[in-house]
Amino acid sequence: MISDKMEKLVAGSSLIRAMFEEGKILAERDGIDNVYDFSLGNPNVEPPETVKNAIIEILSEEAPNRVHGYMNNSGFEDVREAIANYTNQKYQTHVSAKHIVMTVGAAGGLNVILKTLLNPGEEVVTFAPYFTEYGHYVNNYDGNLIVVPPNTDTFQPDIDVLRQVITPKTKAVIINSPNNPTGVIYSSETITQLANVLNEKQKEYNTTIYLISDEPYRELVYDDIEVPYLLNYYTNTFVGYSYSKSLSLPGERIGYIVVHPEMVHLESTLGGLNVANRILGFVNAPSLFQRVIAKTLGSEVDVSLYKKNRDLLYEHLTKIGFTCLEPQGAFYLFVKTPIEDDRQFCVDAKEYNLLLVPGSAFGCPGYVRIAYCISYQRVENSLPAFTKLWQRYE
Amino acid sequence: MISDKMEKLVAGSSLIRAMFEEGKILAERDGIDNVYDFSLGNPNVEPPETVKNAIIEILSEEAPNRVHGYMNNSGFEDVREAIANYTNQKYQTHVSAKHIVMTVGAAGGLNVILKTLLNPGEEVVTFAPYFTEYGHYVNNYDGNLIVVPPNTDTFQPDIDVLRQVITPKTKAVIINSPNNPTGVIYSSETITQLANVLNEKQKEYNTTIYLISDEPYRELVYDDIEVPYLLNYYTNTFVGYSYSKSLSLPGERIGYIVVHPEMVHLESTLGGLNVANRILGFVNAPSLFQRVIAKTLGSEVDVSLYKKNRDLLYEHLTKIGFTCLEPQGAFYLFVKTPIEDDRQFCVDAKEYNLLLVPGSAFGCPGYVRIAYCISYQRVENSLPAFTKLWQRYE
Repeated sequence: MISDKMEKLVAGSSLIRAMFEEGKILAERDGIDNVYDFSLGNPNVEPPETVKNAIIEILSEEAPNRVHGYMNNSGFEDVREAIANYTNQKYQTHVSAKHIVMTVGAAGGLNVILKTLLNPGEEVVTFAPYFTEYGHYVNNYDGNLIVVPPNTDTFQPDIDVLRQVITPKTKAVIINSPNNPTGVIYSSETITQLANVLNEKQKEYNTTIYLISDEPYRELVYDDIEVPYLLNYYTNTFVGYSYSKSLSLPGERIGYIVVHPEMVHLESTLGGLNVANRILGFVNAPSLFQRVIAKTLGSEVDVSLYKKNRDLLYEHLTKIGFTCLEPQGAFYLFVKTPIEDDRQFCVDAKEYNLLLVPGSAFGCPGYVRIAYCISYQRVENSLPAFTKLWQRYE
Repeated sequence: MISDKMEKLVAGSSLIRAMFEEGKILAERDGIDNVYDFSLGNPNVEPPETVKNAIIEILSEEAPNRVHGYMNNSGFEDVREAIANYTNQKYQTHVSAKHIVMTVGAAGGLNVILKTLLNPGEEVVTFAPYFTEYGHYVNNYDGNLIVVPPNTDTFQPDIDVLRQVITPKTKAVIINSPNNPTGVIYSSETITQLANVLNEKQKEYNTTIYLISDEPYRELVYDDIEVPYLLNYYTNTFVGYSYSKSLSLPGERIGYIVVHPEMVHLESTLGGLNVANRILGFVNAPSLFQRVIAKTLGSEVDVSLYKKNRDLLYEHLTKIGFTCLEPQGAFYLFVKTPIEDDRQFCVDAKEYNLLLVPGSAFGCPGYVRIAYCISYQRVENSLPAFTKLWQRYE
């Protein structure tokens, strides 16, 4: 009696739920400390103390009906202005409050952008491996997701294939860097090439092709590597940001969209984002956390804790024989599976109490994602299990 | 370059924005204290002190990664259980945690329900006057909203017309009581008749017709009138609830759905709500406020403050000649306009610095909505303006 589309989605999601249930059963059998759950991107590093302090300050200083009340569907004006100023300072951009739309996390932001842009049947391109929710988000507005196959040498987007898949129906390209699941940062060179292809194709087809940059991992970067800021590369760009990872607030659903100030049809696009936020039922980004963000700009979780995990796990896995690019950001390792069937590999891994996600779930079979946003102690304890898992295939 | 649908929506919303801008201009010209803005349903009564206390308690007692972290897309298990128990105690229902889905306000909840249910072309019935966002929500999933014309004698739903408009394509009926914009509470008798018609039509067409009860105003009730709890009247019922009004937290986007435990295809429906919450980009209801809700169950704003406003304004308006049903709940008066053209009436009202919303915006021309969720002082100061407005047509 639910919709036909939803019936299928529920059937699919039951499989994932079954995996979680198995994890619970393992935890009951062997104790939670002896199960190594690397399956979820739920940050373990605590939010900085500034978050708690900001909340308490706001509650004691600001009028409650303002803190918790309605505002413009695009967010509090002063918060948007603070974010615009911060962005300009950090990335030498020229945005103002009107170019910022506060959203219910990056997931909410992506839906707001796609609702604004897509006519039924239009195409959105992304690069494998990719966050599979993109497929649902595009499908919500009857668009078609076109996936460029992975370049497994570097996990940088394959720009030559991009050039081939763009058609007059291409409305947008979604990229995600630092990338989930690879941890790779798309280089300035890659981004420049990507922008060139989009500009070239816009001219060729006389269309507008938007670039949507999904950036929840922007601040989770190791070894001082710079993450190119997309507004500085391509005009028709939306940046979708979230504080889920940079402040460890994934449950609070707080993020924002930045719109390039020189985007074509700027005013109707800004109007569309505002309307989409409202009619999709978000109405506005949660109000208290909007105010928290304005007070904590520049705060970040302690990224060195993730780096410690990365170093420990990367060294161990490559030492025992696994193949993996060293991730430059995010909190994932994307490891080549020693057998072709990555789903079977994850089933095997469970025998050693290791919970992993197959690369197939990201459009990249033959790999496995290891989310190392768990305690260092737990990572350390898991190492012998990984060794045994590797030995199984030797 | 944005979608064709969105282009039209933006054009429409510009008109509303223009109205707001005019309000701003009035405030600049005559001072904010001399503009009587009755146009917005943004609560002026403060949240109860329990909300602030709960936040501070949670921040000092609970682990930050739990408070602000991911959980099941349907919400924290313990919060859902607390709401289920509270509901059972208050309304003699038999729901458990699994029948509660935490949502991003009632607007998020309605979208989650409709995404779960609707195939393209299916129909959703509602009763004028109605909250116009319903049209957008139904349209988001390519459904058609069928509006039953108002019964302006009582503003109770017209059940005879309902019987006529239900077809084999009818998937759901949305009701809203206490009602925005009339303040009317749908009686137990009305609800019983409505349930009978739905049961009758389900049998006749061998279909499932869902009842969706949108209840953000449930606690805003005067004179000890009981608001029927829909789960006790009809099996295939969803109740969509929000704390926007009962706790004056509209900006925080926190609410929940209750699913009747004996609903047909219960498991796939619960699965669908969970998936819809995720793929629409809500992901989950804001986590801190989920935890706040569990700690403040039974708390309410001081409804007597709204009652004072209602009494003052209702008495004055009816005394000077306006016609209006005395509202039993919510914070709106729905007043017959002395001229037929309610939009013109709102333009006229602006000359006296009165900002009102035409009934046409709720599918009920010839009326005007007055949102009296502003300070008593401001209501009192506005009375001479209403008198002058009435005299204009005498």
